[in-house]
Amino acid sequence: MPVGTAGTVKALTQEMLETLDARIILGNTYHLFLRPGHETVRELGGLHKFISWPRSILTDSGGFQVFSLGELRKIREEGVEFRSHLDGSKQFLSPEVSMQIQHALGSDVAMCFDECTPFPASPKQAKDSLEMTSRWARRSRVEFDRLKGTAQSTGVGSSLFGINQGSIYQELRRQSLEQLVEIGFEGYAIGGLSVGEEKSQMYDITEFIAPQLPADKPRYLMGVGTPEDLIECVARGVDMFDCVMPTRNARNGQVFTSAGKLNVRNARFIRDERPLDDACECVVCRRYSRAYIRHLYNSGEMLAATLCSYHNLAFYLDSMRSIRQSITLGEFASYRTSFLSKFRSRSNEE
Amino acid sequence: MPVGTAGTVKALTQEMLETLDARIILGNTYHLFLRPGHETVRELGGLHKFISWPRSILTDSGGFQVFSLGELRKIREEGVEFRSHLDGSKQFLSPEVSMQIQHALGSDVAMCFDECTPFPASPKQAKDSLEMTSRWARRSRVEFDRLKGTAQSTGVGSSLFGINQGSIYQELRRQSLEQLVEIGFEGYAIGGLSVGEEKSQMYDITEFIAPQLPADKPRYLMGVGTPEDLIECVARGVDMFDCVMPTRNARNGQVFTSAGKLNVRNARFIRDERPLDDACECVVCRRYSRAYIRHLYNSGEMLAATLCSYHNLAFYLDSMRSIRQSITLGEFASYRTSFLSKFRSRSNEE
Repeated sequence: MPVGTAGTVKALTQEMLETLDARIILGNTYHLFLRPGHETVRELGGLHKFISWPRSILTDSGGFQVFSLGELRKIREEGVEFRSHLDGSKQFLSPEVSMQIQHALGSDVAMCFDECTPFPASPKQAKDSLEMTSRWARRSRVEFDRLKGTAQSTGVGSSLFGINQGSIYQELRRQSLEQLVEIGFEGYAIGGLSVGEEKSQMYDITEFIAPQLPADKPRYLMGVGTPEDLIECVARGVDMFDCVMPTRNARNGQVFTSAGKLNVRNARFIRDERPLDDACECVVCRRYSRAYIRHLYNSGEMLAATLCSYHNLAFYLDSMRSIRQSITLGEFASYRTSFLSKFRSRSNEE
Repeated sequence: MPVGTAGTVKALTQEMLETLDARIILGNTYHLFLRPGHETVRELGGLHKFISWPRSILTDSGGFQVFSLGELRKIREEGVEFRSHLDGSKQFLSPEVSMQIQHALGSDVAMCFDECTPFPASPKQAKDSLEMTSRWARRSRVEFDRLKGTAQSTGVGSSLFGINQGSIYQELRRQSLEQLVEIGFEGYAIGGLSVGEEKSQMYDITEFIAPQLPADKPRYLMGVGTPEDLIECVARGVDMFDCVMPTRNARNGQVFTSAGKLNVRNARFIRDERPLDDACECVVCRRYSRAYIRHLYNSGEMLAATLCSYHNLAFYLDSMRSIRQSITLGEFASYRTSFLSKFRSRSNEE
């Protein structure tokens, strides 16, 4: 899922996302709650209508952003008090409020309000945290179901996903999942990873817990990751991802290609007439050269970010399409080997 | 002509310019000379290939930018010494060098290297200045023709336009034109306007000199202007314009509509579900609301500039298409009255 924090996947139009055939994008509850405000979005007919995106939208719960505020927030059983990063105003989020906001936004997939356990956390801290997440998950479920029955509902067909926590402790991950499954959700996410732990720990926890998530429901690994992470975590059982990397890195000139990463601002591209990725058929690679895109960065031109964001998302979405196809054909193992070997081939160039 | 200073019409892709049906864009010789350098552009196959724009390109001569440098430049008969605004390096432009750069860029329409007479200028200053412009125009013509015959030519079918000067003095404008016509060009431009004089002076000089430009050659008013200016100056005999206004103003939230200007950042648009312009059929107006675009500005999102630049160019290019059609139908006078009356109707709203 491309990330559209404030109701826009940065530097791209919705037409471009359709050309990329993005089926679902992520919107941030925290950002949209503060600006323009969920009541404004509701009055404007919900997030789909407001941003003109008829395809699916998943909204996060706001929890991750609020916990990232550090000094600016105070966590209690009832919910989280925090100060807006925009104007310092006092705000409050709880499972109920988060569900109300996501309901007002009219998202297709709402996420439970969870506590994203910080890293590192002792087993005791991680256990306390996941248990609050489980209590909040139950409150999220109750409020979500209540809202779904109300007349003003804008997200009648929507789903609610639970979020697994437990830090890097397998037994805690298992307990968390057990409690979530008992409540029952339309999908299950793995949270609390990509927050500072070693990559091998992220892979290990994913490998441990993903196969235990209900097989008939979507399995979503939150906030991950690099192209290698996607294929490695699909191998470990994950179906869905979101990550700002393809768009955020694009704005700094970092481009993902089938032969690995490159930074198009590099002086060696000044006369390079090749596309960003020879193997890519996106409209950017069919039309523009590395030399031109490097020139745009060098001149501080916005078009640079647009072209690289477009290409990076094309690369990510194409990779996921190829992964799906290889699974359907029973050829995922060989696809994985070939993808990784090609993707790593450029490492010595950089 | 949309202005594509550094080889990009800011915030838009070339695909968008094609959807807008822009037939010709303007590139800045000064900017491309300094970055990435005209020799680099030549090696990459010329500006059309470099930026992937197969349609027409007009390049200015670099004169206007160089004269705007003030303290950083020194004008002599031979040419102009100046320091780059990018790195302070010493550079030199002359009629010959300007033609060589525009030839390397491969532009379809090259402009003579002229001295843009500053405003205000005494009759004596204006006369000296236009006479140097005439001598430079002759040198431009000679060098342009020499280059056109060379084997490496990338702009074989290209044209050279002369630039009329003379400040706000009718007699000097006439003398300048006489000298240019004696040399002979494929088109004639009116320069040295929109540089600080009263709008009525700009209209008066245009009304005086435009009809005297050869009727069988394009007449181009440089650096003008507002939507009202376009229609008023067409009425005075002008065929072609360039101006950064539709794109530059868009980046500040100023939008041109059939009912006048509006600034979409204004708080009163927070829940306004209407398109930027009810009467516009561009893809932005068909899809996005004022409320959404206001939200994008308010959130510092790049997409705001893209959507408003697109719409503003749609409005400018649609206006010019309607003007052409009304002339063909012999209905220009009534079109002019109706356009201006509608365009001014919103003034009391702002």
